[in-house]
Amino acid sequence: MKKSLKIAVIGGGSSYTPELIEGFIKRQDILPIRELYLVDIEKGRKKLEIVGALAKRMLEKANSTIDLKLTYDRREAIKDADFVITQIRVGLLEARARDEHIPLRYNCIGQETTGAGGFAKALRTIPVILDICKDIEDLAPNAMLLNFANPAGILTEAVLKHTNVKTIGLCNIPIGTKMQIAKLCETDVSNVYLEMIGINHLNWTTRILVEGNDITKEVLTKASSSSGLTMKNVPDFGWDANFLTSLGALPCAYHRYFYMKEQMLKEQLDSFKTTGTRAQVVKRVEDELFELYKDPELDIKPPQLQERGGAYYSEAALDLILSIYTNKGDIQTVNVKNNGIIPCLPNDAAVEVNCVINSDGAHPIQPRVEIAPQIRGLLQLVKAYEELTVIAGVTGDYKTALQALTIHPLVGSVELAEKILKDILVENKDYLPQFNKREVLQN
Amino acid sequence: MKKSLKIAVIGGGSSYTPELIEGFIKRQDILPIRELYLVDIEKGRKKLEIVGALAKRMLEKANSTIDLKLTYDRREAIKDADFVITQIRVGLLEARARDEHIPLRYNCIGQETTGAGGFAKALRTIPVILDICKDIEDLAPNAMLLNFANPAGILTEAVLKHTNVKTIGLCNIPIGTKMQIAKLCETDVSNVYLEMIGINHLNWTTRILVEGNDITKEVLTKASSSSGLTMKNVPDFGWDANFLTSLGALPCAYHRYFYMKEQMLKEQLDSFKTTGTRAQVVKRVEDELFELYKDPELDIKPPQLQERGGAYYSEAALDLILSIYTNKGDIQTVNVKNNGIIPCLPNDAAVEVNCVINSDGAHPIQPRVEIAPQIRGLLQLVKAYEELTVIAGVTGDYKTALQALTIHPLVGSVELAEKILKDILVENKDYLPQFNKREVLQN
Amino acid sequence: MKKSLKIAVIGGGSSYTPELIEGFIKRQDILPIRELYLVDIEKGRKKLEIVGALAKRMLEKANSTIDLKLTYDRREAIKDADFVITQIRVGLLEARARDEHIPLRYNCIGQETTGAGGFAKALRTIPVILDICKDIEDLAPNAMLLNFANPAGILTEAVLKHTNVKTIGLCNIPIGTKMQIAKLCETDVSNVYLEMIGINHLNWTTRILVEGNDITKEVLTKASSSSGLTMKNVPDFGWDANFLTSLGALPCAYHRYFYMKEQMLKEQLDSFKTTGTRAQVVKRVEDELFELYKDPELDIKPPQLQERGGAYYSEAALDLILSIYTNKGDIQTVNVKNNGIIPCLPNDAAVEVNCVINSDGAHPIQPRVEIAPQIRGLLQLVKAYEELTVIAGVTGDYKTALQALTIHPLVGSVELAEKILKDILVENKDYLPQFNKREVLQN
Amino acid sequence: MKKSLKIAVIGGGSSYTPELIEGFIKRQDILPIRELYLVDIEKGRKKLEIVGALAKRMLEKANSTIDLKLTYDRREAIKDADFVITQIRVGLLEARARDEHIPLRYNCIGQETTGAGGFAKALRTIPVILDICKDIEDLAPNAMLLNFANPAGILTEAVLKHTNVKTIGLCNIPIGTKMQIAKLCETDVSNVYLEMIGINHLNWTTRILVEGNDITKEVLTKASSSSGLTMKNVPDFGWDANFLTSLGALPCAYHRYFYMKEQMLKEQLDSFKTTGTRAQVVKRVEDELFELYKDPELDIKPPQLQERGGAYYSEAALDLILSIYTNKGDIQTVNVKNNGIIPCLPNDAAVEVNCVINSDGAHPIQPRVEIAPQIRGLLQLVKAYEELTVIAGVTGDYKTALQALTIHPLVGSVELAEKILKDILVENKDYLPQFNKREVLQN
Repeated sequence: MKKSLKIAVIGGGSSYTPELIEGFIKRQDILPIRELYLVDIEKGRKKLEIVGALAKRMLEKANSTIDLKLTYDRREAIKDADFVITQIRVGLLEARARDEHIPLRYNCIGQETTGAGGFAKALRTIPVILDICKDIEDLAPNAMLLNFANPAGILTEAVLKHTNVKTIGLCNIPIGTKMQIAKLCETDVSNVYLEMIGINHLNWTTRILVEGNDITKEVLTKASSSSGLTMKNVPDFGWDANFLTSLGALPCAYHRYFYMKEQMLKEQLDSFKTTGTRAQVVKRVEDELFELYKDPELDIKPPQLQERGGAYYSEAALDLILSIYTNKGDIQTVNVKNNGIIPCLPNDAAVEVNCVINSDGAHPIQPRVEIAPQIRGLLQLVKAYEELTVIAGVTGDYKTALQALTIHPLVGSVELAEKILKDILVENKDYLPQFNKREVLQN
Repeated sequence: MKKSLKIAVIGGGSSYTPELIEGFIKRQDILPIRELYLVDIEKGRKKLEIVGALAKRMLEKANSTIDLKLTYDRREAIKDADFVITQIRVGLLEARARDEHIPLRYNCIGQETTGAGGFAKALRTIPVILDICKDIEDLAPNAMLLNFANPAGILTEAVLKHTNVKTIGLCNIPIGTKMQIAKLCETDVSNVYLEMIGINHLNWTTRILVEGNDITKEVLTKASSSSGLTMKNVPDFGWDANFLTSLGALPCAYHRYFYMKEQMLKEQLDSFKTTGTRAQVVKRVEDELFELYKDPELDIKPPQLQERGGAYYSEAALDLILSIYTNKGDIQTVNVKNNGIIPCLPNDAAVEVNCVINSDGAHPIQPRVEIAPQIRGLLQLVKAYEELTVIAGVTGDYKTALQALTIHPLVGSVELAEKILKDILVENKDYLPQFNKREVLQN
Repeated sequence: MKKSLKIAVIGGGSSYTPELIEGFIKRQDILPIRELYLVDIEKGRKKLEIVGALAKRMLEKANSTIDLKLTYDRREAIKDADFVITQIRVGLLEARARDEHIPLRYNCIGQETTGAGGFAKALRTIPVILDICKDIEDLAPNAMLLNFANPAGILTEAVLKHTNVKTIGLCNIPIGTKMQIAKLCETDVSNVYLEMIGINHLNWTTRILVEGNDITKEVLTKASSSSGLTMKNVPDFGWDANFLTSLGALPCAYHRYFYMKEQMLKEQLDSFKTTGTRAQVVKRVEDELFELYKDPELDIKPPQLQERGGAYYSEAALDLILSIYTNKGDIQTVNVKNNGIIPCLPNDAAVEVNCVINSDGAHPIQPRVEIAPQIRGLLQLVKAYEELTVIAGVTGDYKTALQALTIHPLVGSVELAEKILKDILVENKDYLPQFNKREVLQN
Repeated sequence: MKKSLKIAVIGGGSSYTPELIEGFIKRQDILPIRELYLVDIEKGRKKLEIVGALAKRMLEKANSTIDLKLTYDRREAIKDADFVITQIRVGLLEARARDEHIPLRYNCIGQETTGAGGFAKALRTIPVILDICKDIEDLAPNAMLLNFANPAGILTEAVLKHTNVKTIGLCNIPIGTKMQIAKLCETDVSNVYLEMIGINHLNWTTRILVEGNDITKEVLTKASSSSGLTMKNVPDFGWDANFLTSLGALPCAYHRYFYMKEQMLKEQLDSFKTTGTRAQVVKRVEDELFELYKDPELDIKPPQLQERGGAYYSEAALDLILSIYTNKGDIQTVNVKNNGIIPCLPNDAAVEVNCVINSDGAHPIQPRVEIAPQIRGLLQLVKAYEELTVIAGVTGDYKTALQALTIHPLVGSVELAEKILKDILVENKDYLPQFNKREVLQN
């Protein structure tokens, strides 16, 4: 008989938590959770209390036997945990607002997870996640870390390279894409199989099968004219038909920042003038959500959460836990160590690929389709940026950070990289201990 | 006793030819040339006659025994040749002017050998060089093709992938860099050894040894403050010191188009307003050169040719021929098939690396230094662009051309790629038979 | 609604066929077979008629709706088939007897599927299977070929390299090993997960999980003392404990021919004196089986078939067909193109690895365990032998055949290879058209 | 102005030393040696004194300015040395006699450098050479270690993997092969260029060029009928013509132990009965040499040394030192880290390949010829054996030693490996401290 589980959620006060709770409730017959710890930092006490209270009401309503605990002591939560879920946001939405704003000053795209914005977020988050991993190594060495903090690929790579913690990086894009394809093809999501290749937020769907039939070409033709193939927080510009069919794969929503650089930048600059950064929009949504969460009558996940972006994250996380716990052997698209499954990337890189999930973890499946040059080149460049970012994030080395930003396609020159990096380091000073150890501001 | 050589120079009417003739004269004691054919097309008759006459006067003055022949029959020149040298310019300087101008219309860098300009030049030149190779396969299957038409890396890759011709691609940057380093270090060029890695016009010097001592770090520190490390036709902006020392290698002059995109574009736009494109400047220089060449008293290479750019090209070509002829076994940096010498690039790619040169051809030497991520990412992306360009140049496939331009870092978006590609195809119509076979102009 | 299937069984007169029929019957609710063709050559008419009649009785008893057809026209059977199953034995048991005997003359192991015996069998079978593939390309280009003729790895590689037919090579060792482990661990086979790496009949089980727990070390300790880990036709010598635990993986039964060369050879020489070759033993078993099959009262698979060796072959084949038909996505260990999943073998080699099986075919899963040198070396050598055997089998080149035999560890010297090869070529003359085209008998 | 050199020769009392001294004398105008230390252990005092006295007489006769020093203090010799040459023989010829004899007891080939004999020698020598490397790291971190103790490939790999010492492994086979080819082709050795691929004592000459012409095929045809292509200490059986021409490369002398296993074994068993092991023969030769060396009138290398086997070792060593000292840039075949130059072997393996030699060390050149399967398989297997031997030699792990011997083609079974290993461990007890730390004799 299998044992019941202890789960620790770091960043438990997140507005996403009700979705996670709903997920646990839905699976309560097949996934026996003994203890569920929601952990947060002191600064997040108010939010954790609100969300925690709502979670309690939800669990009670569902007659759940889960023992829910709120804590500010991370080590207590991690001790002997089976799974540790990280959904942290170092520096809160204020930091995200800066991430989005700094690049815009220099006419570069300001985005939370890629480009200079994602870079800043990575520098802030790497020290924290490595710190969490030290606790896991110490208190729960067999635990599996499921990270869905962003930039998920870079954080997974940092954990894989610098700790002994077992980890899988998670994103909602794969599951979201599957649902969109299902909708596009008017079929149930269970009939859809996608072959995905790439890295987090730069992931190409190279094959699309519905009920076992390869309909990739048809979907690419459709997709260039249809809308709906994007994420909540990425504007929906249609793809050019010539481009899409010769790309030979469905790009993910974040590819727009690369392939449609000018339009995306223009849209960001326009939006910034009217509604501020995306972080500011999200902040307003979150404030409203927390107002709703406070309602002592509320005992379900409010439908407004769906609007927040990030849909299916908890689905992705819970499907993963379930397949590991039940030794299921199904296929999910997650972030793991490459080890040659994408031969054109370094063996020790984190990649986002289809994996068989069982009690033994995630096992990459060999892609059927060889990676085309038009995909390979961009993939390799952005991965090189990620490698440099991991080094910069761990060491706090100013020059490595400069190289990372210089080669990122959304920055792309030394001059811009220097200016942006200077702003990032100054405005994130409180969150970059690794850089403060050193003389980093060279000019 | 070794036989004397027959050499065919395709594009013999080039203004560079006197440098080549000078090179043959300098080596006449060690490199016995029997026949030297200067070939050109009918359209270039006037230039070939002028240059040919000067060449004759130069050879006579030197008491050379070389039998110089001018011809418009390429097959006559190639038949049984030992070496075929290609220095062609399909579409003449007029085409180059368009190559440089079209991208500028869209605020993209317009450059003869890289970016959208080099791309257009590749599309024009690939069919011609493959045609030349058919003649070589037919009439001189053991000949070695030495190409220094640009973009030399792409053309070498096209020849390697689509013909059975033995070929080495040549560039003056490696020899030029060596001379600059020698000057910088105040030593003789024979004391300098450089380890170079990369592809044509995107080549990093990863190690610099003078008299066997590794002084790479010292040179990188010096180079960020000194000027002089550039080519005639590339503006000399100094390198950022932080950037250069952490790059860990000396970039080549053409890297400025990537690492200093904004400054280079600004400089191009400014120059364009005042002096026109670089092609127009070169045109004026060439016209003046041909005026000089006409002088029946002139029987040496006029010193003004040095001003033209492209210095040392003939040195590079003749050193190569000499090492092959004499089975010398020295080391030169040339363009050859990769075959794993740069493990992060495809095996069948053309790469520019250090090779042992002997009668058996060029044999790549394993680089001592592993390629750093900051170098690897950009190298891989531009190589992917080159692979696509070879496909587009051979097949005339519009969509592949679109993918190639989209991923090039100097274009970088679908929208720009489409606009620029449309202009390229329309304005080069006469030189793109491979595209005219098909319905290419989609919009 | 999915269509019903047409299946062609080449070599339908085999004594194994009743097992296959039983398998179809067991799965009749989930695997709708419309037409089942048993094909054989004229020479096998007697056997096909006997087996065919038994099959009919079995199907009738089970109220099956399968339309069973016996034919000697292979093309009729293949036309529009969904699956083609090959269970051919070129030259019948008489040829196998020679395969086993020839090497024994020179004190080399004589085995049906590996060493010089398997080599001879490969040479005979390659032309036939390629011929079958021509029919498939012509008449059923979308059919999946499931081959379980031996040597299955070499034949799969020949098909992958020289035809366009979709194919998966099958062996009963993986399923057999799973069953033995289940028995050893006293658990149900569904609880056992094995990670297998290697090539057909040289396959190492590198990880053993029961209910998700890794018990590899425990099994290796147990296995060195227990018996039962072998196949019917491979003598069961226990493994040396020191050897097995440091090998780090469970060898398959056929490894005994390599690791216990002397004992195996001695056993073969002893057996040969008393009972003749294994082929002769099997011949007697088969004769008895066919006597049983003739019984018009018999309408089930007779239990004596289990004694025959080759148990679970039809289980393996039918599980594979079912998973493909139902797009199941379970994991089976089969022979497919390597493509880098075993990085130390050539990309175009056939390998035997764990694959996800769905309607799209077999998709290799990345092994978790890196291949240890003690496994790698032998694996690479035998694969090199297989590559050469494919070339020799296709071209009929005497010298390549000589190289193949020379490097095989069960032959291992030029002198032995020459002698054995001479005998093979002479005694298989009627079955080696590819060699007869040429002057092959050099001495 | 370049400085003069200090050279330490470990194992200075070797009978080879006069050849080395002769080499230094021949090069005294171009290779300025300041100090030459001949080091030996106390046990070798008598030999060192004899050889040392002869060396002094030779240097005096040549008016050499080299300061020759004899010492038993290894650290004094190594301190600040520019080159350390190791020509040690741990356990003296007595140990070699055992290495050759033990395998013969079990009908396996007994050879000093490969098979079980070379394995025993590796186990004895690895601890000593790693100890020497500790002294080098400590006292002369910039020194280059040139090892020609055998098995040179395994020792080089041990040093590369377990120390920070710069090293090149040396063998006389490459230079010897060159001389034999020159003789066979009746040309000067300077006209011969060989492309060699493989590992020490398992090295294939894949291309043979004389004056730049590829005559590989002609030589392979000749070589199968000619004698003379072997080493002094390897019997000269002619190669089979069919085998040699389809191998596509010239095997080295030691390949006979693999390709002609039976003949070689028979020859060894026969010789053993009549003249004892090769070690015993050599012992007699050495005793005679030392008698000669004692002659106070002798002041040149006596011609009898040539008979000893191992000719050209000092040529190889001194050519290497000279090319490094003078930054020459010529090509020599030596043992270095693979790093992908032989793609089918691990990156960290020692390989024997053509290298450019300059002040910066040895730089592998990319082989032109792809390695054929008939070469690849054996090469990979023996390399895997070498990897295991390095592990066993460093750790003293009995089981790893068992795996190493089991897979070696000259042993090839668990049973033989266990028996031979037991004898090796017992009879070399005094020289295997790494095994004595542990419980190694399991049975």
